[in-house]
Amino acid sequence: MPLIRSWVRPANDPEGSFPLNNLPCGVFSTPGTAPRCGVAIGDSILDVAAMEAAGLLPLAERPVLGEGAWNPFMALGPAAWERLRVLLYGHLAEGAVTAGVVAPFLCGMAAARLHLPFRVAGYTDFYAGRHHAMNVGTMLRGPENALPPNWDHMPIGYNGRASSVVVSGTPVRRPWGQIRPEGAATPLFAPSRRFDLELELGAVVGVPSSGPVSVARAEAMIFGYVLLNDWSARDIQAWEYQPLGPFNAKATATTISPWIVPAAALAPFRVPGPERAVPLLPYLAEPHPMTLDIALEVALAPAGQDETVIARTSARNLWYSFPQQLCHHSTAGAPMQTGDLLGSGTISGPGRGERGSLLELAWGGREPLDLPGGQRRSFLEDGDTVSLRGHARAGGVRIGLGACTGTILPAAEEPFGGGQ
Amino acid sequence: MPLIRSWVRPANDPEGSFPLNNLPCGVFSTPGTAPRCGVAIGDSILDVAAMEAAGLLPLAERPVLGEGAWNPFMALGPAAWERLRVLLYGHLAEGAVTAGVVAPFLCGMAAARLHLPFRVAGYTDFYAGRHHAMNVGTMLRGPENALPPNWDHMPIGYNGRASSVVVSGTPVRRPWGQIRPEGAATPLFAPSRRFDLELELGAVVGVPSSGPVSVARAEAMIFGYVLLNDWSARDIQAWEYQPLGPFNAKATATTISPWIVPAAALAPFRVPGPERAVPLLPYLAEPHPMTLDIALEVALAPAGQDETVIARTSARNLWYSFPQQLCHHSTAGAPMQTGDLLGSGTISGPGRGERGSLLELAWGGREPLDLPGGQRRSFLEDGDTVSLRGHARAGGVRIGLGACTGTILPAAEEPFGGGQ
Repeated sequence: MPLIRSWVRPANDPEGSFPLNNLPCGVFSTPGTAPRCGVAIGDSILDVAAMEAAGLLPLAERPVLGEGAWNPFMALGPAAWERLRVLLYGHLAEGAVTAGVVAPFLCGMAAARLHLPFRVAGYTDFYAGRHHAMNVGTMLRGPENALPPNWDHMPIGYNGRASSVVVSGTPVRRPWGQIRPEGAATPLFAPSRRFDLELELGAVVGVPSSGPVSVARAEAMIFGYVLLNDWSARDIQAWEYQPLGPFNAKATATTISPWIVPAAALAPFRVPGPERAVPLLPYLAEPHPMTLDIALEVALAPAGQDETVIARTSARNLWYSFPQQLCHHSTAGAPMQTGDLLGSGTISGPGRGERGSLLELAWGGREPLDLPGGQRRSFLEDGDTVSLRGHARAGGVRIGLGACTGTILPAAEEPFGGGQ
Repeated sequence: MPLIRSWVRPANDPEGSFPLNNLPCGVFSTPGTAPRCGVAIGDSILDVAAMEAAGLLPLAERPVLGEGAWNPFMALGPAAWERLRVLLYGHLAEGAVTAGVVAPFLCGMAAARLHLPFRVAGYTDFYAGRHHAMNVGTMLRGPENALPPNWDHMPIGYNGRASSVVVSGTPVRRPWGQIRPEGAATPLFAPSRRFDLELELGAVVGVPSSGPVSVARAEAMIFGYVLLNDWSARDIQAWEYQPLGPFNAKATATTISPWIVPAAALAPFRVPGPERAVPLLPYLAEPHPMTLDIALEVALAPAGQDETVIARTSARNLWYSFPQQLCHHSTAGAPMQTGDLLGSGTISGPGRGERGSLLELAWGGREPLDLPGGQRRSFLEDGDTVSLRGHARAGGVRIGLGACTGTILPAAEEPFGGGQ
């Protein structure tokens, strides 16, 4: 796969994240300016909102990039998405005649603040990682009964809380909640002691729908992908989740990376899905490979210390692709909306160092993780910073997903202090 | 409780739904006009959007009633909500000096089409009806283990799909989904055969929050209440719901009544909650009674036939009040938003005729319900029309909640027909 070279020189760095092949979509601001749409290129952000306003990016009859969220553009659909890429190739490729006109619209990434790149309409979290489901199921029910009987037939999912999705860099305050200590008859109301991370990918729906959509159509509805950390309070979850599923345990925050990497940039990295012993129902069949070959890692840094990579794995470990997830989501007729976010569920690989949560890495606290400096972790401690990273690579092209980072703040002393 | 008499005579009917004490908020349109905010009074709708535009309802610096959803007004908070009521009392009460000015803003209800009264930001469904939880739990696990151990300690809830909330009158198409027939090893993809209704109340959040809120503060955040039918595909639910809860089974549609009855109109009908054998954790304590004394009923009409009331019960059967639900929802830090909708969960009473779902009324299909004309029902059939109704009454005042109605359409022949 060839690198498309750019006159923005850092974009040609083979170890960089944002070559011209990528063109991920974010929302940025600089001191004194309003958040607006930008596209990452090398170490810069191209102010596509300003370019559109200047007539350099004719995308639609009305401006679609000026309002601080990619939703209006995403709603235009795949033809417009492709048009933006083609226009930007023309402006940014090596030798572009418009280089001199476009250069003033570049902003150094270091000077910019990044915001949530889209308004999250709905947030759904799936459970599509087989090793994760096996690990968690084994801890709870033993290896023979690890997977529930429906697991091999459908991408299990649940609705999350869209209002709690935040952009990378937002601190995450340890939640309070109902917790029943082991052996106790009744619960306490206390700060979570088993607060965890979850390594996930997220798909961003661009095109809305109003009824069941096929796997093929679902793929064409997905605008792009982000990294996603679905922070999870395991002790709150253990007590609350029967019979209606996770609720407050997942409601504190879900952090996403600030750059939506377009589906078009990741299309070359689609690979066949897993070999299945249990055949899928026909409606979930993929017309072509849809699993994403993206390398993923999790790093953890205790307060004031260097980070350690605690897990490395691949999105190839997902048992159900995002188009399969989205198709299944739509089967009962639920409308899908521009700005819907689908989390994959935690992505773990088969090896111990490939597990996408502390619950798995430290096996429920039974095998704490040793970090440099004498630190040990079963779950997250106050001050810990978690960073998810991901990239796809082929030939000389590296498509980076940016970073998805959050630091744990201590629990509030009095949770109802604010305006009771 | 005294009736506030109005010069809009039908509003004084003691058996009517919309006296001046009520003033419920809807969105309406007439042929050729755009949806806009209206308030029901007697058999008419007061075009409060037009009144605001004409300067007769000064509520905020900018117009808040013109855009076809009550969200901008709801976000203003309780002082503005009270101001609107006071202004409308002034305009609509018997002897109002502005009666002549206001009369042209009345529109006959029969001539209007009603729309969803607010943009649903998030939709959460609780499980706060104890008799319902007991009935369902008894069917699944026997009476000794009917309630999960957390049930007496917290209002259990799960996130629903906001995009599938529709207004009363919208037809509901029987969904397809994965279903595992009894005794089968593998699932089918087929139309649901156990499609059901759920009688619920819904609370509409007006004031947003950004961290945990107390029960007292939660009560002040609630703008008003609607009737809510959480259509449920029991066969899809039975197969999909472990371990992450209901998903597609609840995603086809959730129907709400078109009129948001203001919390202020229902405040006189707050009564003490249930006597509890198990004490609640202090954070869930109510500073004053918050259970709503609202009479509820469910009517079912087979295609072309008269309806039969199949259940009568009361919202007093809710074990957790809406402020308790909202407080619990917020404890882990999830932001609450203007337009969040909280469903109570199915409301059933102790008697057989007080059950708020067909699952309970026909006891899982074991005791089918006999209707006039030789019809029997275990679950809904195509062409059935379900209507929920509710009212609170004291002295000469009857506060009606309007109707929450939906007719079942047959399943699509080919669910992926639309644009595969």
